[in-house]
Amino acid sequence: MPQTPFNTPADFEMPASIKESPLFKMINPGSIAFLGASNNFGSMGTSQLSSLLDLGFEGRVYPIHPKESHVQGLKAYAHVGDLPEVPDLAILILPTRIVVDTLTQCGQKGIKHVIIVSGGFQESGASGSKLQQQLIQTARSFGMRFLGPNCLGITNPHHKLNTTFLPFVGQAGYLGMVSQSGSFITQMFAYLKRMGMGFSTAISVGNEADIDMVAGLQYLAVCPHTRVITLYIETIRNPDAFIQVAKTITPRKPIVAYYVGGSESGRQASLSHTGALSGPDALYEGLFRQTGIIRANSIEELFDISAILGNQTWPQGNRVIIQTHSGGPGAVAADACDREGLTVAPLPATLKQQLAELIPHTGTVGNPVDITFSKDRLAYFSSIPDCLLGADHYDLLLVYLLMPKPMFARVLRSMGVPDDQIAAETAKLIDEVAASFKRVSQAQGKPVIGFSFHAQDSAAIKSFRKRNIPVMPSPHRAARAIAAVCRYAAWRKTAATA
Amino acid sequence: MPQTPFNTPADFEMPASIKESPLFKMINPGSIAFLGASNNFGSMGTSQLSSLLDLGFEGRVYPIHPKESHVQGLKAYAHVGDLPEVPDLAILILPTRIVVDTLTQCGQKGIKHVIIVSGGFQESGASGSKLQQQLIQTARSFGMRFLGPNCLGITNPHHKLNTTFLPFVGQAGYLGMVSQSGSFITQMFAYLKRMGMGFSTAISVGNEADIDMVAGLQYLAVCPHTRVITLYIETIRNPDAFIQVAKTITPRKPIVAYYVGGSESGRQASLSHTGALSGPDALYEGLFRQTGIIRANSIEELFDISAILGNQTWPQGNRVIIQTHSGGPGAVAADACDREGLTVAPLPATLKQQLAELIPHTGTVGNPVDITFSKDRLAYFSSIPDCLLGADHYDLLLVYLLMPKPMFARVLRSMGVPDDQIAAETAKLIDEVAASFKRVSQAQGKPVIGFSFHAQDSAAIKSFRKRNIPVMPSPHRAARAIAAVCRYAAWRKTAATA
Repeated sequence: MPQTPFNTPADFEMPASIKESPLFKMINPGSIAFLGASNNFGSMGTSQLSSLLDLGFEGRVYPIHPKESHVQGLKAYAHVGDLPEVPDLAILILPTRIVVDTLTQCGQKGIKHVIIVSGGFQESGASGSKLQQQLIQTARSFGMRFLGPNCLGITNPHHKLNTTFLPFVGQAGYLGMVSQSGSFITQMFAYLKRMGMGFSTAISVGNEADIDMVAGLQYLAVCPHTRVITLYIETIRNPDAFIQVAKTITPRKPIVAYYVGGSESGRQASLSHTGALSGPDALYEGLFRQTGIIRANSIEELFDISAILGNQTWPQGNRVIIQTHSGGPGAVAADACDREGLTVAPLPATLKQQLAELIPHTGTVGNPVDITFSKDRLAYFSSIPDCLLGADHYDLLLVYLLMPKPMFARVLRSMGVPDDQIAAETAKLIDEVAASFKRVSQAQGKPVIGFSFHAQDSAAIKSFRKRNIPVMPSPHRAARAIAAVCRYAAWRKTAATA
Repeated sequence: MPQTPFNTPADFEMPASIKESPLFKMINPGSIAFLGASNNFGSMGTSQLSSLLDLGFEGRVYPIHPKESHVQGLKAYAHVGDLPEVPDLAILILPTRIVVDTLTQCGQKGIKHVIIVSGGFQESGASGSKLQQQLIQTARSFGMRFLGPNCLGITNPHHKLNTTFLPFVGQAGYLGMVSQSGSFITQMFAYLKRMGMGFSTAISVGNEADIDMVAGLQYLAVCPHTRVITLYIETIRNPDAFIQVAKTITPRKPIVAYYVGGSESGRQASLSHTGALSGPDALYEGLFRQTGIIRANSIEELFDISAILGNQTWPQGNRVIIQTHSGGPGAVAADACDREGLTVAPLPATLKQQLAELIPHTGTVGNPVDITFSKDRLAYFSSIPDCLLGADHYDLLLVYLLMPKPMFARVLRSMGVPDDQIAAETAKLIDEVAASFKRVSQAQGKPVIGFSFHAQDSAAIKSFRKRNIPVMPSPHRAARAIAAVCRYAAWRKTAATA
C-alpha cells in the first residue's frame, strides 16, 4: 500500500449522512435488476452487463429478458415483477419507446432507484423532451429516484461496480467524478491507470432529468474514499443550487472542473450530446472563481492538478525552487513556472554559500539549481534538496527526473554488476532516489513534485508515485498544475480565516 | 517501411551544396579523434565515447589518452600528433584549462573540424569569455571550424553517430534539430521513440563561439533526410543572419521553434546555461512571424506540430470535421479546435442527408459527427469519412480513436475466437481500421489526423503511425498542433505566390 497523508480506504467507514443521498443505493447497491442485456454480444446492454460481471460485482444480479432463460450465465426473469426480491437498483438499457412503461413496472415492483441508460430524450428535440417529462412524472408517482436518461451510470471500483460499456481497468483510487459525458468516464479508465490514479466513484449524470450534478457533488463531498472531486461540465442546469453547494464543499475538499461549452462549437456539441444549453465562457469563469472551484483548461490539467492535490502536502506559498541536472529542461521549467505566475526567485546569498561545496564547478547555483553531471548521488538526492527546502526561502521543490536507465546500466556494468542483475540494481537505485526525496519532503513538511519525459507507466515513475510524489509528464504541465494548486491553497487559507 | 509522401532515406543522395557546410564533416565524419574518454566509467567523456560505440559508428575512432594503451577496447594514442591519419573530426571533453592548448595541437596535426564539449567558457563569466576568445583565435589561425564550447555535439542516427552522453534509443527519422541545450536533445531520444518519431540530425550548438544556429539551419535546409527543422532557442545571437537565412528556408521546409527565454526566469536560466542573453518575448514573437517560423509554446507542441508536418498532406484550409463515437471527447475536441481558431462549421444539409442512413438514431449528424455505438464498422471507418471529406466542405478530418482493446476482445470471444488468437485478431482489426483511414485520406487528398488517450507506444497507435497518420495524445494537443499547421500551410500558399 502506498503511504499517504490520508487514511487508507480500509480504514474508512461510511458516514451516516452519505446514506441520505439518493445516489447511495446506486453507488453501493446490494442487488441489481438489469434490463436490456442479452447473449447477443453486439448490443450495448450486453456490454454493460459484461462490464459489471468482469469487475466481479459481489451483489445479486437479475437479468430481465423476455425470451432467454439465462443471460451471460445468470438466471434471467421474463418480467421485473417476477423477481424474488425488490432489488436496490434497476438499470434500463432499452429502446426509447418502452422506457416509460418499464419504469412504471419498476415502480410497481417497489424499486426505488433506477439508472436509465437509454437515449432519445431531451437531447433529441421536442418529442424527446416530452418523453423525458413522462419519466419524471412516473418516477415521482412512485417515489423513485433516477440517474439519466442518456447516461452510463456508475463506476465505483471500491464496490466492484461498473455499469458502463467498457471493462474497468486500473485500481480504485481517490478521484471522485461527476460527468455529463458517460463515455468520457470510460475512456479515462486506461488513461488514469497509466497515470497511477483511479476513481473513487465516477457518476455519469447524462440529461440530469432527476438526479443532477449537484447531488453528485453532495455525495462525493461526504464520500470517504474521495480526496478530490473532478467535474466534466457541458452545462450547469441549476446554477443557484450548484453555487450554494459547491461553496460549502471547496473549503473542505477541492473541486476541479473542466468546462467544455465555452466556445460556440463546444456549445453546439454539448447541445446535441446531452441537450445541454451552455453559457458564455466568462460566466463560467466567474462562477468557478466565486465558488472556489479550480478550473482546468484541458483534460490533462484536470488530472494533473488532482494528482498533486491528492498526494502531496499543499504548498504554503508559490515560491518554487527548481532542481535539475540538465540545463535545458531546467530552463524550460523556470520559464513555464514564471509564465504561470509562480515565483521563481534567485537564491539568497546564504543558500548559495551552503550549496557551493555540494555542486561541481560546471553546475549553476541559481534557480534552477543545475547540478549538471554529478558524481555524488547522495548530494543530488538528499543534501541539496534538504538545503533548498530547509530555510524559509521556498515553498516547494520541482525536480527534474532524468533517470536514464541505459546510463545507469552502463555505470553498473562498468562496476562489474553482471548483466542479469542490472535491471534489478537499476530499479533499486531509482527506488532509493525516490525514497530520498520522500524523506526530504516529509522532514521539511513541503511538497516535492517531479517532472520527467519518461513514459508515465515506467517503473521509475511508479517508484515515485508509490511514495505519493507526483511526476508530471512535462515542464509545462508541471507549471500549470502547480500554479493551480498554489492558487487554491492560498484561497483555502483565506476561506479558513474568513 | 512506412509509406510516406516523401522519398525514403534509402533514395537520398547528399546534394553537392551540403558538403560546403562547415558542419558536414562533423555530422558525417569518416574518422574521429576522441579526447577525454577513459576506462573510468564515472566520467562524462567516457560516457560520450560509449554512446558513440554503442550506436555502432562505422568510421575509425582514435581515443587520445596520456597513460592508457587502450580505451574501451580501442587502441589509444598518447598525443593527437601520433595519429596515423588526420581525422575528419576531433571531439574535446577536457578540463577547461587545457582546451586551448589541445585545440592548438589539433590545428598542428591539420584537423579542420572540432567539437568542443568542455564547459567553463562564456557561460561562466568574464574569465571564461576571455578563454572563449582564445578558442576563436586559435581556430582561425589554423583555418579550423568548431562547434561549442559547452555543447554535446551531434546525433545523426542515419550515420550511426551519437557524440552525446546518453545512449541513443529509437530510430533515424525526419526531424532536424538545432538546440542551444545539448541535454535537451538527449532527453528527447526516448520521448521521440515513444512518439514514433526520430531525429534526422540533431545539433547541439552550445555557446556558438564559431558555428552557430544559423549554420545549423543552413545544413538542415539541404539535408535530404530532414523534412522538418526544429529549434530549441535560448537566444538568437545573430538576428540579422538568422532572419535572412530563415526567410529563405521556410517557404521550402518548415521550421518549428521553441523559445525558452521569454520570461524573466527563463532569461536568467538561459544566461547561466549557455551565456545567452535573451530578449523580450514580443521581440521573438515578431521575429518568428516575420520569417514564417512556426512558434511552439511547449516541448509537446514542438513535436506534435512536427509530426503532422512530417507525415501528412497539408490541409488546404482550416475547416475541420470531427468524427467520434464518443460524445465527450468529440465535444472537447470541437471546443478546443474552436478556441484555437479553427473553423468547426456545422454540416451542410446535403451532407446531412447523405449521412442520415449511415448513422444510428442515437448518433448525431453534426460537427462532431457522433456515431455513438455503431455495429457497422465499415461505415464508421470508410463510408462516413469518405462522405465527410468527399465534398468541398472540409479540409481535414480529426477522428477520435477509441479502439478499446478489452471490448474488441469481448466481442471476438463472443464470436467464438479462441483465447490464444484474440490478441492477434484484435491487432488485425485495428490494422484494418488504420488502413481504411489511410485509403480515405489518399483518395480524397486530405489529411486525416487521429486523437486518442491511449499510450503513445501502444500497438494500436503504431498501426496508424506506420501509415503516416499522426495520432495526438489529447484533443487539446490535436487542436493546437493542427491550428499551427493550418496557419503555416496558409502562409506557405501566400509565400509561394508572392
